[in-house]
Amino acid sequence: MASVSVDEAMRRAIELAVRGLGATSPNPVVGCVLLDADGEVVGEGFHAYAGGPHAEIVALAQAGTRARGGTAVVTLEPCDHTGRTGPCSHALIAAGVARVVVAVPDPNPVASGGAATLRAAGVQVTLGVRAREAEAGNVAWLTSMRRGWPYLIWKYAATLDGRSAAADGTSMWITSEAARMDVHALRGTVDAVLAGVGTVLADDPRLTARNLRDGTMAIRQPLRVVVDSSGRTPADARVRDGAARTWVATAAEVGAGPDGRVDLAALLAELHHRGVRAALLEGGPTLAGAFLAAGLVDRIVGYVAPKLLGAGPTALRDAGVSTIADAIDLEITDVTRVGPDLRITALPRKREA
Amino acid sequence: MASVSVDEAMRRAIELAVRGLGATSPNPVVGCVLLDADGEVVGEGFHAYAGGPHAEIVALAQAGTRARGGTAVVTLEPCDHTGRTGPCSHALIAAGVARVVVAVPDPNPVASGGAATLRAAGVQVTLGVRAREAEAGNVAWLTSMRRGWPYLIWKYAATLDGRSAAADGTSMWITSEAARMDVHALRGTVDAVLAGVGTVLADDPRLTARNLRDGTMAIRQPLRVVVDSSGRTPADARVRDGAARTWVATAAEVGAGPDGRVDLAALLAELHHRGVRAALLEGGPTLAGAFLAAGLVDRIVGYVAPKLLGAGPTALRDAGVSTIADAIDLEITDVTRVGPDLRITALPRKREA
Repeated sequence: MASVSVDEAMRRAIELAVRGLGATSPNPVVGCVLLDADGEVVGEGFHAYAGGPHAEIVALAQAGTRARGGTAVVTLEPCDHTGRTGPCSHALIAAGVARVVVAVPDPNPVASGGAATLRAAGVQVTLGVRAREAEAGNVAWLTSMRRGWPYLIWKYAATLDGRSAAADGTSMWITSEAARMDVHALRGTVDAVLAGVGTVLADDPRLTARNLRDGTMAIRQPLRVVVDSSGRTPADARVRDGAARTWVATAAEVGAGPDGRVDLAALLAELHHRGVRAALLEGGPTLAGAFLAAGLVDRIVGYVAPKLLGAGPTALRDAGVSTIADAIDLEITDVTRVGPDLRITALPRKREA
Repeated sequence: MASVSVDEAMRRAIELAVRGLGATSPNPVVGCVLLDADGEVVGEGFHAYAGGPHAEIVALAQAGTRARGGTAVVTLEPCDHTGRTGPCSHALIAAGVARVVVAVPDPNPVASGGAATLRAAGVQVTLGVRAREAEAGNVAWLTSMRRGWPYLIWKYAATLDGRSAAADGTSMWITSEAARMDVHALRGTVDAVLAGVGTVLADDPRLTARNLRDGTMAIRQPLRVVVDSSGRTPADARVRDGAARTWVATAAEVGAGPDGRVDLAALLAELHHRGVRAALLEGGPTLAGAFLAAGLVDRIVGYVAPKLLGAGPTALRDAGVSTIADAIDLEITDVTRVGPDLRITALPRKREA
């Protein structure tokens, strides 16, 4: 097998890491490629699920003695603590790895320190290789760890003229089956799905991640969170079925803001405490407006159907904007066709404080 | 010069034709490539402006005697009548062209018959080469000639959540300068720009085609049409300045529909009569809704800004849809980034009668 450069190996490690998305929380996604002393690939691994072996351990197991004198190329700084698995730093030292190349340092104060431990043991450590791409692959986890609340994605579906339902309230279906399947795949990458009680009362959604064709459930289901200030979620709402865990978050439990509604920052802090690193906000328009007005949305994914309605509720309401100069500015990062629909991905621009 | 195939020549002729867009009405855009007997290009031409020489005449002038025994490749059936210029069919016969290859037959009863005249003179005529592409390049003119009213493009600008202004009415500017320059270029390709009197009263737009950077006017200005049922356009409205022709279309002049407003079908018929083949509808939301409800819109061009407002007027109102099953179905044919904005082009799907 031909030798590969450290840069190529990191690109491969980043690809490997992505495979764990949605299954590793509260852990990050991590990929690892092990090169022997001649630069040949002797091991590959990624962190596949929380509680499972870390990427480095998988790669080391594959490499065996060929890791000795080699280079471990890892998307995230190897952990230095004993959690459900032993510290990766120790495993790399024990295997005789000569050099460790890392894309992004670990922001988690509990697990970080791996680089220092490796250096103390005489292992050469290089940080920052392809850091931007590795960051992008792990953005939800890194963002949430650095600031202490989940990475929040607002997902909406609307017609080209911004309506989420017709004048009579009908909305099934605005978007195509292909777009709705894409939403279920998106649910599979997050740890929690949030909806306001208004959406639960109006549409009675399941909020599970499933295969729309055959109805089978994804193995790992996100926590379903109903933002329900005064506890109006019916006992027989679908969101309360046994298909996944559900948390009806009331103002009494979470705490209330000045308007008497659930304090959204407190809600996100509690979700972080419960291990939620990435969350998907699915509606309705008023809840989305409140999260956006508070600057708590990290990414927007809009499914835009090639339809016009000219009347009916809009996808977004009351985002705290009354004049054009105060509009919430976004950067569109991706536009993809999903069946006949468009999926528009955008990031809110940071506002001046 | 190497010889080219008839197919290649037609592709080139279609490219040439497009250069005339916006300047030839009430005539179509036409491109022509002349090949000599060996298949070498000896002449090229396009119809550049109404009253100017037709594409075939330009190409024949360039080819001179080399046209004899050659092939004329034309996007539209050569005209057979004497208007502001003589019939192209006669010119081709006089030049000794042996074969004429045409993409699309002329639907205009006044000018058609060129193919028959050519055949009667012993010229070989082939129809239908790259007809679909040539149709697309001439879609506005062909559509309007076939049915007797202008090809209507609805243009709107909105935020990602479908708002055309903020809650306080401010809207300058929702889209970027790049998008607004694109709109002016679009105005340069049509014969008329339409706006409702509400838009004139609210925004006092000029509705001219100009260079936004230096303010210079396009040489050819579309007719400005204010749809103004009861004649409320102020005498000092900018749309009444001398920069371009203006028609304030009132119900008294055009005729009224059952609601007392300007009869839109009658309005379009009158515009056709005035030589308008392509028209751009620029607002407001209610007028757009009326045209859409009547099935009179042929193309939609939406400039979508990466902004959220959550309140304020929507880009479209009252399109005659009250339930999701009656939504106006579109097909998105193009999505292009224009500066930070998206330009989404869509065609309404034909409804079952």
